[in-house]
Amino acid sequence: MTIEDSLTRLEPDFAKGGGLLPAIAQDAATGEILMLAYMSPESYRKTLESGEVHYYSRSRQEIWRKGATSGNLQKLRELYLDCDRDAILLKIEQVGGIACHTGKRSCFFYRRSAGDLYETL
Amino acid sequence: MTIEDSLTRLEPDFAKGGGLLPAIAQDAATGEILMLAYMSPESYRKTLESGEVHYYSRSRQEIWRKGATSGNLQKLRELYLDCDRDAILLKIEQVGGIACHTGKRSCFFYRRSAGDLYETL
Repeated sequence: MTIEDSLTRLEPDFAKGGGLLPAIAQDAATGEILMLAYMSPESYRKTLESGEVHYYSRSRQEIWRKGATSGNLQKLRELYLDCDRDAILLKIEQVGGIACHTGKRSCFFYRRSAGDLYETL
Repeated sequence: MTIEDSLTRLEPDFAKGGGLLPAIAQDAATGEILMLAYMSPESYRKTLESGEVHYYSRSRQEIWRKGATSGNLQKLRELYLDCDRDAILLKIEQVGGIACHTGKRSCFFYRRSAGDLYETL
């Protein structure tokens, strides 16, 4: 029995998401969730080929190499698919330590306090 | 200065997601990502009111109280919004320890090995 025997050929099911799937970027070392963005088939392929995370910008309608402008690249360490193959989990190394365009480490910096009141971290 | 002074009234921007937004469920204790599902305004409201996570099933087109059938409820510990308010992060306690309908702890059990080969955890 070789290692390939326990492996399965899989692809994300992009059709399920209308061509795009949500991808979660999680810090591979700390487990912190840094951002959620979208991947197209091409951005998925470019991510695997380059080892640097590429997303698809829904507003600009184009492939987006994360950190191309800021220098805050995301180096892919591990990639997971969920049970339905319609969500992607990226375990990454965040170059520069900053994932969010606001300059914060994580995009998830609004923490609910009570009712509709949120604290900004 | 009261605590309210440092807080902001916020709502998820459901319109940005065409009425639904992706919600990441993360184990509040371990940081493990357990699943990604979708929330509607009503499922968001019910989650806040009950303290138990409610999603919106895109296939069944209905509100879905997580664990209603299996007993594997998700108790909300913290809720975060991202910078654009179009993604939700739920830090939860997973009752029963199992989030996935397949019986696995996390839905993200396909780990990429090489090329399009994935290992099933």
